[in-house]
Amino acid sequence: MKQILNVALAERSYPIHIGTGLLNETELLLKYLKQKHVAIVTNTTVAPLYLEKISKPLRDAGVQVVEIILPDGEQHKNSETLNTIYDALISARCERNTTLIALGGGVIGDLTGYAAATYLRGVPFIQIPTTLLSQVDSSVGGKTGINHPQGKNMIGAFYQPKLVLIDIDTLHTLPQRELSAGIAEVIKYGLIRDAVFFDWLESNMPKLMALDSAVISEAVYRSCQNKADVVAADEREAGERALLNLGHTFGHAIENAMGYGVWLHGEAVAAGTIMAAELSLRMGWLQTKDMQRIKAIFESSKLPQTPPALGVEKYLELMGLDKKVQDGKIRLILQKGIGSAVITSQYDAEALQLTLAAYH
Amino acid sequence: MKQILNVALAERSYPIHIGTGLLNETELLLKYLKQKHVAIVTNTTVAPLYLEKISKPLRDAGVQVVEIILPDGEQHKNSETLNTIYDALISARCERNTTLIALGGGVIGDLTGYAAATYLRGVPFIQIPTTLLSQVDSSVGGKTGINHPQGKNMIGAFYQPKLVLIDIDTLHTLPQRELSAGIAEVIKYGLIRDAVFFDWLESNMPKLMALDSAVISEAVYRSCQNKADVVAADEREAGERALLNLGHTFGHAIENAMGYGVWLHGEAVAAGTIMAAELSLRMGWLQTKDMQRIKAIFESSKLPQTPPALGVEKYLELMGLDKKVQDGKIRLILQKGIGSAVITSQYDAEALQLTLAAYH
Repeated sequence: MKQILNVALAERSYPIHIGTGLLNETELLLKYLKQKHVAIVTNTTVAPLYLEKISKPLRDAGVQVVEIILPDGEQHKNSETLNTIYDALISARCERNTTLIALGGGVIGDLTGYAAATYLRGVPFIQIPTTLLSQVDSSVGGKTGINHPQGKNMIGAFYQPKLVLIDIDTLHTLPQRELSAGIAEVIKYGLIRDAVFFDWLESNMPKLMALDSAVISEAVYRSCQNKADVVAADEREAGERALLNLGHTFGHAIENAMGYGVWLHGEAVAAGTIMAAELSLRMGWLQTKDMQRIKAIFESSKLPQTPPALGVEKYLELMGLDKKVQDGKIRLILQKGIGSAVITSQYDAEALQLTLAAYH
Repeated sequence: MKQILNVALAERSYPIHIGTGLLNETELLLKYLKQKHVAIVTNTTVAPLYLEKISKPLRDAGVQVVEIILPDGEQHKNSETLNTIYDALISARCERNTTLIALGGGVIGDLTGYAAATYLRGVPFIQIPTTLLSQVDSSVGGKTGINHPQGKNMIGAFYQPKLVLIDIDTLHTLPQRELSAGIAEVIKYGLIRDAVFFDWLESNMPKLMALDSAVISEAVYRSCQNKADVVAADEREAGERALLNLGHTFGHAIENAMGYGVWLHGEAVAAGTIMAAELSLRMGWLQTKDMQRIKAIFESSKLPQTPPALGVEKYLELMGLDKKVQDGKIRLILQKGIGSAVITSQYDAEALQLTLAAYH
């Protein structure tokens, strides 16, 4: 079972292969190498599960494989870990045509992509995302980067991979909590631009949670398609692409305040999406019944619906670090019904205060 | 006195203004700001000379100016200094439309450009180069980056400025040694692609060394034009652009071995250019009389002509770290007469050994 999607970005276009058993597609990987030299970047959790499965057949095909195994967790998405990658690439004499392969979740993808964007001013890279969150979101679209002690993804680059290989079989080794975190981003596509997909998700959530192959495959495909459409229209986030950040300004504040890795990114986004929906409701842009549908789908996905009690001031301070801030004003992605969203600074400041104050 | 050159890179095109008195052109700077918020990055040497001259009129025009003053020297072109810039940008709440202004030489330009390429995944930046080397070379073409303990410019990005403002008046505060270092890169354009310019330089070197305004202005313009032509044809160094690295593979080895900042970049490039010419001579690609012309022009520019005695092995080891290495083979830029160069790995290995062994 396999589907192929194209991300249309002129000379930076690339395909996404989605299906089962794709980790075995060594021939496909080989087709994308400019030189028989790769560096596979992964972490201590993923390495014992899938590293050998990728690297052995590559070695058998005569490829020189460098393995870089990092500690697992969002708290390691920083400049120290990045330097670990650089040091390993230099020690192994990786060249401009050496391909970096990111094998893991969003942290591995973001770190590896950023290393690929900056090592020798740019080397090719391939994404093999192994978590639902990275399969439906972070591996597509070329956002790469690291966190700064004062904010998430503050340092980074737009840098597109040559190929994304999504094997949904890897989800069978994913903890329930991380599966749910990924579903938060799947639901996001329905909320911001695809009401039909939202309806479909409401009906199919039990099968999705049970990892039914056909349903998971369709959910991943539809998510990637939505993301590819948005990215093709607005690669560098001058406009529409910002809508993909639904729940993220609140969510990043939560991740930052709680300490990176304490709340999973998808969990923080889920809570942030609830906050955005509540503000939309207060603004009269979302109906009560739709608010209930949003809460219900998060409940059926075992996602948190109650943001942590940081207090209004802390929320506002951390939200002020957001990359979307313009002329000092926090811009937010808010709902206009289900399947439609806007980026705006034209929300009522008091309504925002009330929304934030509801959690204390 | 002012000339304007365009670097043609489609939507990334930008102008280079070259002339006298340009530091006073506040209106021009204002035209390029997307928001009345700039961060000027400079160093402890340049700040007392020119910082206030740029920042006061900007402040008077209502622009919020953040000043970031770094230590001076190639040895500071590293990740620690880069983090200093990031920290200052975050503390000052610099946003996606904040413009970074690089005010200084090549190190400041490379660091600031790289910070601009990666802060919030990219913010606009402007180059105001104040040394001859940065005016004729590093400020044009979008190469940005930092050094790694194991190699020069190992980490970086291709990222174009919005504007380059070259005020040749700043050369009057430049130490003689740095002026000479800059002339090494000026001569380079003659050697690799502009024999007529090389002839002109031979005739005008005394006036150039004496900072005659008309001669300096012409030399800077002609250098930038050559560089802009090469960069427009090959932005990401897939081919011809590599020729700009004449003398650099040898030169980087010298800088690295001696410790960054001990030999100036231009001095190391001059010595490296002599080595490349000697290898070209041994290969029969350069005539003895042209070798003599090259040595003579370097002598009249007060540039070193004798590379340091590192020994063959050390040279080869450090040259092996070069970004142009392909399949483990060192590629070099070599002369085919004056005004023509090639990038090649088809040189005689023994001739290279003999060239390197001449310095011991």
